[in-house]
Amino acid sequence: MITHPNYAVEPWSLRETGLNLDVLAQSESVFALSNGHIGWRGNLDEGEPHGLPGAYLNGVHEKHPLPYAEAGYGYPESGQTMINVTDGKVIRLLVDDHPCDLRYGRLLSHERVLDFRTGVLSRTARWTSPGGRTVRITSRRLVSFTQRAVAAVVYEVEPEDGPASVAIQSELVANEQLPHVEGDPRAAAATESPLTAEEHYAEDTRLRLVHHTERSALRVGAAADHIVEGPEGTRWSAQCEPDVSRLTVTADLAPGQPLRLVKFVAYGWSAERSLPSMHDQVDGAVAVAVSTGWDGLVAAQREYLDRFWAGADVAVEGDAQIQQAVRFALFHVLQAAARGENRAIPAKGLTGTGYDGHSFWDTESYVMPVLTFTAPEAVASALRWRHSTLPTARERARQFGFAGAMFPWRTIEGAECSAYWPAGTAAFHINADIALATVRYIAATGDEDFERGVGLDLLVDTARLWRSLGHHDPEGVFHIDGVTGPDEYSAIARDNLYTNLMARQNLLAAADVATRHPDRAGELGVGDEETAGWRDAAARMALPYNEDLGVHEQSAGFTHFQRWDFDATPPENYPLLLHYSYFDLYRKQVVKQADVVLAMLECPYAFTEEEKARNFAYYEALTVRDSSLSACCQAVLAAETGHLRLAYAYLNEAALMDLEDLEHNTRDGLHIASLAGTWIALVGGFGGLRWHLGKDGRPDVLGFAPRLPEALSRVVFTVQLRGRRLKVDIGRTRVGYRLADGEPLTVLHHGEPVTVTAEASLERPIPPVPARPEPQQPRSRRPQGPGEPEEPRPDAPEQ
Amino acid sequence: MITHPNYAVEPWSLRETGLNLDVLAQSESVFALSNGHIGWRGNLDEGEPHGLPGAYLNGVHEKHPLPYAEAGYGYPESGQTMINVTDGKVIRLLVDDHPCDLRYGRLLSHERVLDFRTGVLSRTARWTSPGGRTVRITSRRLVSFTQRAVAAVVYEVEPEDGPASVAIQSELVANEQLPHVEGDPRAAAATESPLTAEEHYAEDTRLRLVHHTERSALRVGAAADHIVEGPEGTRWSAQCEPDVSRLTVTADLAPGQPLRLVKFVAYGWSAERSLPSMHDQVDGAVAVAVSTGWDGLVAAQREYLDRFWAGADVAVEGDAQIQQAVRFALFHVLQAAARGENRAIPAKGLTGTGYDGHSFWDTESYVMPVLTFTAPEAVASALRWRHSTLPTARERARQFGFAGAMFPWRTIEGAECSAYWPAGTAAFHINADIALATVRYIAATGDEDFERGVGLDLLVDTARLWRSLGHHDPEGVFHIDGVTGPDEYSAIARDNLYTNLMARQNLLAAADVATRHPDRAGELGVGDEETAGWRDAAARMALPYNEDLGVHEQSAGFTHFQRWDFDATPPENYPLLLHYSYFDLYRKQVVKQADVVLAMLECPYAFTEEEKARNFAYYEALTVRDSSLSACCQAVLAAETGHLRLAYAYLNEAALMDLEDLEHNTRDGLHIASLAGTWIALVGGFGGLRWHLGKDGRPDVLGFAPRLPEALSRVVFTVQLRGRRLKVDIGRTRVGYRLADGEPLTVLHHGEPVTVTAEASLERPIPPVPARPEPQQPRSRRPQGPGEPEEPRPDAPEQ
Repeated sequence: MITHPNYAVEPWSLRETGLNLDVLAQSESVFALSNGHIGWRGNLDEGEPHGLPGAYLNGVHEKHPLPYAEAGYGYPESGQTMINVTDGKVIRLLVDDHPCDLRYGRLLSHERVLDFRTGVLSRTARWTSPGGRTVRITSRRLVSFTQRAVAAVVYEVEPEDGPASVAIQSELVANEQLPHVEGDPRAAAATESPLTAEEHYAEDTRLRLVHHTERSALRVGAAADHIVEGPEGTRWSAQCEPDVSRLTVTADLAPGQPLRLVKFVAYGWSAERSLPSMHDQVDGAVAVAVSTGWDGLVAAQREYLDRFWAGADVAVEGDAQIQQAVRFALFHVLQAAARGENRAIPAKGLTGTGYDGHSFWDTESYVMPVLTFTAPEAVASALRWRHSTLPTARERARQFGFAGAMFPWRTIEGAECSAYWPAGTAAFHINADIALATVRYIAATGDEDFERGVGLDLLVDTARLWRSLGHHDPEGVFHIDGVTGPDEYSAIARDNLYTNLMARQNLLAAADVATRHPDRAGELGVGDEETAGWRDAAARMALPYNEDLGVHEQSAGFTHFQRWDFDATPPENYPLLLHYSYFDLYRKQVVKQADVVLAMLECPYAFTEEEKARNFAYYEALTVRDSSLSACCQAVLAAETGHLRLAYAYLNEAALMDLEDLEHNTRDGLHIASLAGTWIALVGGFGGLRWHLGKDGRPDVLGFAPRLPEALSRVVFTVQLRGRRLKVDIGRTRVGYRLADGEPLTVLHHGEPVTVTAEASLERPIPPVPARPEPQQPRSRRPQGPGEPEEPRPDAPEQ
Repeated sequence: MITHPNYAVEPWSLRETGLNLDVLAQSESVFALSNGHIGWRGNLDEGEPHGLPGAYLNGVHEKHPLPYAEAGYGYPESGQTMINVTDGKVIRLLVDDHPCDLRYGRLLSHERVLDFRTGVLSRTARWTSPGGRTVRITSRRLVSFTQRAVAAVVYEVEPEDGPASVAIQSELVANEQLPHVEGDPRAAAATESPLTAEEHYAEDTRLRLVHHTERSALRVGAAADHIVEGPEGTRWSAQCEPDVSRLTVTADLAPGQPLRLVKFVAYGWSAERSLPSMHDQVDGAVAVAVSTGWDGLVAAQREYLDRFWAGADVAVEGDAQIQQAVRFALFHVLQAAARGENRAIPAKGLTGTGYDGHSFWDTESYVMPVLTFTAPEAVASALRWRHSTLPTARERARQFGFAGAMFPWRTIEGAECSAYWPAGTAAFHINADIALATVRYIAATGDEDFERGVGLDLLVDTARLWRSLGHHDPEGVFHIDGVTGPDEYSAIARDNLYTNLMARQNLLAAADVATRHPDRAGELGVGDEETAGWRDAAARMALPYNEDLGVHEQSAGFTHFQRWDFDATPPENYPLLLHYSYFDLYRKQVVKQADVVLAMLECPYAFTEEEKARNFAYYEALTVRDSSLSACCQAVLAAETGHLRLAYAYLNEAALMDLEDLEHNTRDGLHIASLAGTWIALVGGFGGLRWHLGKDGRPDVLGFAPRLPEALSRVVFTVQLRGRRLKVDIGRTRVGYRLADGEPLTVLHHGEPVTVTAEASLERPIPPVPARPEPQQPRSRRPQGPGEPEEPRPDAPEQ
């Protein structure tokens, strides 16, 4: 086991006070900077040592053949993988001929701070070179929220204990050498040296490289310019080769005399634009950045983030670590999405190459619910990306003989990349997840243009898919057979409850929006017969329920499967998928991640309170949380069913997933959905935020049911709703609602409609918690959060 | 569409009267010679042109990494593929410097005959070289049944229309160049140049090559010797290189003067034996063959086959094509198994590289039922091979957390090679198939040594698997969840009827045999508690049945699935798996191949007559026969339920699978199981041969229920039973039973016990056929056999 870095607990920043090379890759992920378009991992400025060097552009990928020992109809032939593009953050340092590599010499101190309010990553190091000279290195780095194509670095070096000759090499590097990874040679070929050189340039302080990818045929340009500030005698020159363009600055520094370099980097990529236009595009973006200047970029960054936090912050009293974690989470969720502009939000954002840089359903189901209330324009942008992939999704539906569109389980540019068909061709719920994200964005923003256009298109094509995918039985019940729901320890099941409820919602929303925009619906060929067919299927949707147990079934027959033998499963055999076969997992009652529980979160109005409590307890005993997507959902339903201490433990698990590297893979990138889950656990769980059914049966009424666990004394959060900011201030016994601006608004407080204004805080008491027996988790799978008593050790005798 | 060769219809041979290069690869399969140890495809002597050159040794394979885009627990890492070993059949011919390549010059006539009674493939060709000289070429070839390591060729050339200088090059060739096949480069690497040279030798008329494989580490030796008969002046010399050892014979021939070469080839392979011992082994085998001589080999071959036919022949009157087909089938089934000697019987025998040379469940379920009655020693040998793989199968069961042994879905040497887990880890029925083959071999032969040893081991380990794989529900019913049955258009289902019935049989047989051999059972740790557990699980086995329809369900809930839309499926979309996804196939009522129907064939006593009739009709309407394993089973149940015309059509389909290349893949090798199915359709269908339950509840009483379709006037077949040969002579209205030898024997005639003797034929009348409505097949899937009215064309309007 590696030890994880100790990050200092601070409300508005993440501070690392030493450098632990064993967890360097993890720190590169948590200190990654991104604006949703450019992503720079938190690599050390000097390039090495590194865990995984990474500079990414949202959408830039290479293709590779997918290998199959036994292929089947509809298996995708080509995979896509996000590539490491031209790295613009490398600034190498030589001190008296010794390269500054922190593995050598002596590191006296090293501190990195990521400030969530300034959006700047700062670093201070004191290092004694192998030659004995001690220097102080500082750097500040940002990826600009306001200038989408731009990132910048200020790098400063200063000898402390005597004169030093220093050289700084500031680079653009393409095809960086990456750590070797085992695997299919054809997939590796897509990521090793993925860029073919087209143009290299270096003159005075200006650098440029243009490359393209071979199979995906994308052109990638990067340019840089510099401001050098050093003592007299400071000199610089620029050199370039096809894969490196470099500015070298040399200076003889007296003790205490600094050499300072400001580096502006601009990126561009396109599948269409020519070499000259790409060339001009990146040079132009750099010129604008130089004219704005470092201080100007920093000021704009702060202003952008001030606006964000004013409409998105969650203040937590009583647990400083959770306070830090939720802001860390919101900051990274924002970074993943802010300026994506009609591109996807990948599962790892642009923080690492985990999952090949693919986007999954968790964008719509975990990330968008947060962004809808904190940065709604980013939701519209990501849904416009889905919309742009409709032709591909329609083509895939045709291939499978279905109507409408069949969105991919995992992709970068829209084509299905899943080589595992029980996911790639059976996890149909992603289509309803997209539909629900669409409906909620519209409900939260009232964006009618979006509804008429992108929204209607997405709803109609997904509704058509469901209608053709399911069928009526002789009794008229509508079934959806053979699908895989959210729980990845089940697959290919009949009537997955979550899928069917979400499909029902999808069908009804499509009928509803089509009816409201008959002209546009007519253009899509949607008439009354079709919408009637959707409503009928929705009305007769099969929802499996075990009458004897009084619980919903995850899928038809699920509660009759053999229970997993949890007592015979040692703790080291988790995650189960690494120690047991799909065959055995799929046929038993064992749940990887929230499925019925997620259904109760997404479609709360489909369950009575008592059903929710029984369902939660039943599935709690089967759920092993081998997915980072589970804890936050369990937190919400634990809170709703009155298990506040348990909810708090799950909140901790979701919140610390990356900060404490709970799944041991933060090195590959952050779990953006689990980060979003921190907000979901707090706001959905302890705030009780849910969409409820309005008078017309649409789930468009926002409700709250606040209730805090013992550990927290106060939680204050702001959500954006129909152009207003609504602040909810939850205390131990009462809650206050107030608008920051705008016209009064009606929401629900524990089911009671209340009208909130900007004039005064509306105060309401918090009703008592219903008393219910504590649900049990599978052996050794109790959450280890601070709210929970310690679990008996696995070798302790059974009670 | 390619046209298929017209084979002359003859009762005891397969004669091809011309050479059609378009179907050369198919003819190479049907003219393949094998003894179960050596396999030589029916390639032209001169080596080229060829479809696929092939010389195989049972068990000789190379390994290669199996590629996975997304791997999972328990996926096999290594594949195995049968390789083309040293080719000993190549005899190249030069006529006045023109290589004899039938693609050039003019082929005046070409005839090949495979004689089922002599086991010799004869060829006669008259060819005019591009230089204008006409020669007559004859060859005869055999792979010896009596000298297991030996094959031999007589090759003769004679100018017709003037003198000719001829050269004959007789070769051993390793690493023959094969036609290029697309696919994974790492898998291709295993078959392209799979042999590494160790030794090459050529002196006087003797040739030898020894090679080894790299990853599977097998040593392969081949040696040859020759007898040259030519006019004065005939000269020869031998040359060799690492991959070719060659005898070159030259002669100047006057018209009508022949040059004749007799070539004896011997093979050996081993994972253990050293180079010198391999070298000696093949030289020794050649020396014995030379001493036996060609005529001696031919005589022994004839004698071996005479014995086989005396105990195995099926004579058919009324349909000459079926007569030929059933003998062709029996001949190839014998070739696949005769001298395997504790090796597997691959799905394609040793006739081609289809399915990578793997063995599947069809060995036990289709091939062994025939061999049990026609060549029982071959069954014992193939089951001993299974037995030899028990350590690997036990290890795999451990890996999956099960008791006992888990035999592979597809393999060459025992390790699982299926990269598709819904087959490779879920098609558990193979274990019961092996158990049933064991039980039937014992019932048919009374081989008690085998029962106590190999038999008990196989039964105990498979019973232990079933007991640990299934579970009791709260009502005490025993379920087996998540398995894949025979029908490959369904997968991962609960309580597959076939699997559960077969598992029941397996559990009972294990308990029965263990009880009969308590000492041996004790050595295996089997006690009364364990056998009681097996009997209990068997007694409470879930057998899904739909009360409303009065039919058994293929698996729990199957009859509630949506029916496949057959009317919307055009004929060109078959086989469905090439045009529809697993996702869609698995979730609908569509059946690739006999599953419930196979259950009724294998466990006839588990169904009433009326259930059989209803089940047959129900599944007939869903079964598309996209597998060559289906038609013969449907033939049997069609006959049993009184649909004799339909049974006859299915018999034709099974019988002509390879002779008419119905699935367009005979080029890759023969469908040995479907060939066996010809016998099953005739003897199981029109003979009604079945195992029935005896007094002690064991399925060990042989019964017949003969009944002919209109097209056939008489069928006479012989089966071997407990050391006797029983001849059943079926006419239109009566049937005669008579033993060829041995003590009297009691069998069932249409359910009535009758005692058959060697003294006189016992005559019995045939009861009338029950009248039942004709079952319907899915649109465009009616069998196209001669007994059936032509199907309406797909573009004809619906009735």
